[in-house]
Amino acid sequence: MIPENPVIGIVGGKGRMGRWFHNFFSNLGLRVLVSDLDTRLSSVEVAQQSDFVIFSLPMDVFPEVVKEIAPIVPEDRAIADLCSLKERQVECMLEYSSCEVIGTHPLFGPAEEAITGRRVALCPGRGRKWLEWWRDFLTHHGAIVTQVSPSEHDRIMAWVQALNHFILLSLGKALEDEGMDLHHVVALSTPSFERQMEIVGRLCKQDPALYSKIQMANPYTDRALSSFMEHGSKLMDIIHAKDKDQFISIFEEVQHFGKVLLQTKEEKEEKS
Amino acid sequence: MIPENPVIGIVGGKGRMGRWFHNFFSNLGLRVLVSDLDTRLSSVEVAQQSDFVIFSLPMDVFPEVVKEIAPIVPEDRAIADLCSLKERQVECMLEYSSCEVIGTHPLFGPAEEAITGRRVALCPGRGRKWLEWWRDFLTHHGAIVTQVSPSEHDRIMAWVQALNHFILLSLGKALEDEGMDLHHVVALSTPSFERQMEIVGRLCKQDPALYSKIQMANPYTDRALSSFMEHGSKLMDIIHAKDKDQFISIFEEVQHFGKVLLQTKEEKEEKS
Repeated sequence: MIPENPVIGIVGGKGRMGRWFHNFFSNLGLRVLVSDLDTRLSSVEVAQQSDFVIFSLPMDVFPEVVKEIAPIVPEDRAIADLCSLKERQVECMLEYSSCEVIGTHPLFGPAEEAITGRRVALCPGRGRKWLEWWRDFLTHHGAIVTQVSPSEHDRIMAWVQALNHFILLSLGKALEDEGMDLHHVVALSTPSFERQMEIVGRLCKQDPALYSKIQMANPYTDRALSSFMEHGSKLMDIIHAKDKDQFISIFEEVQHFGKVLLQTKEEKEEKS
Repeated sequence: MIPENPVIGIVGGKGRMGRWFHNFFSNLGLRVLVSDLDTRLSSVEVAQQSDFVIFSLPMDVFPEVVKEIAPIVPEDRAIADLCSLKERQVECMLEYSSCEVIGTHPLFGPAEEAITGRRVALCPGRGRKWLEWWRDFLTHHGAIVTQVSPSEHDRIMAWVQALNHFILLSLGKALEDEGMDLHHVVALSTPSFERQMEIVGRLCKQDPALYSKIQMANPYTDRALSSFMEHGSKLMDIIHAKDKDQFISIFEEVQHFGKVLLQTKEEKEEKS
């Protein structure tokens, strides 16, 4: 049975996301125990005294902490993480625990005021009771929760995060190298390119160190980048050869794909 | 001296952009003479009876029509075009004429209701009188006019149009090939990737045949695409080698470039 007001433990609770979730739970009246490098409570104590333990840790120290702490958590309780990747992380939590396990990826940063309308991915690891509690809890407070397998999560992230940033960085570097008068570039932008420049501009808000980890630690990055580069190289050959028919047929194919994508997005928005 | 109400001639005036400019001038009370494949007036007559002759023609028939019609226009009058590219087009108009020449690229399509807030690029060819008249006329009616050399225009267009579409097509094709569940992709999108998908979705509005010409006829396309692909390939090597420092340094460089770009855009918007 899950207690009506479970005690939440946050291991690594002094980091930015840890503090965000600390506030989130406290504001909702739940008791939160926190451990970090310099807290009164140790991580072992937090794990012993909490019903639901969240690991809020940098991905590189995650395995060693899980290895030490996860075995302490009793079978009828649960552990979760907040990592940007899920396949190895959920595996690691399963390996060192006998309790319930829920991979959790909040698709937002600590700058967000509330969870309302924010996306969270949940990757079931072990057990259903706490998974249902956690999903209902997040949903009840306004989050848009999607359940996916850890491998599908990482595969999609390779496209959504790794490839997306790869394109923006390559475009930004190439544009900078060309040294054009940016006043003229701005003055001659089409609406489509204007939007592309806005996305490049948004990179300022991101943390380069975090993104280098996301790029390099995701096992699916390689395939997403290679596929994009291969399609680019084929398309370059078509343009070189001035093969209009082939170009138009690819253009029409992507137009169709774009339509399906927008429809999927609209359906999703109507539902939520 | 430029007449107070110059007679406007539109060669190719039955096409979509030709009709758009016909309406534009007529609504402002100017007399407009139009020629096309099946008009009462021939292109020669239009050229003889107009003060300002606009060639509104597909880029592939443009040179032969200019060769025939431009020599007829007297020295104190002017010709302009509406092509999406400018270097060869302005050269061609200069070669076959002795009148004033103004390369003109309306950076909008015939679906726009009014010219207010729309961008127009002007590329001076020969003479100042009509150039000033045309620039003032467009500006007075709400267009945002930018004057650039024909070669700079084409160079910027290679990035703004050709490379931008190249990236969107390669991304669309690669995503389609991967065959992921689009509901999950949409559900797990970051704000940045969501915007990227919106741009891919906007391709539906474009004309694939026109874009194939823009890709293949612009002499600067090659360099823009190659530069992007080279930077992509270098970045892939860095990611493969898990060289975090190098990755972070590129990320920071592009963050800086993006900031400068956004500032340039804001300055531009404040002015207009």
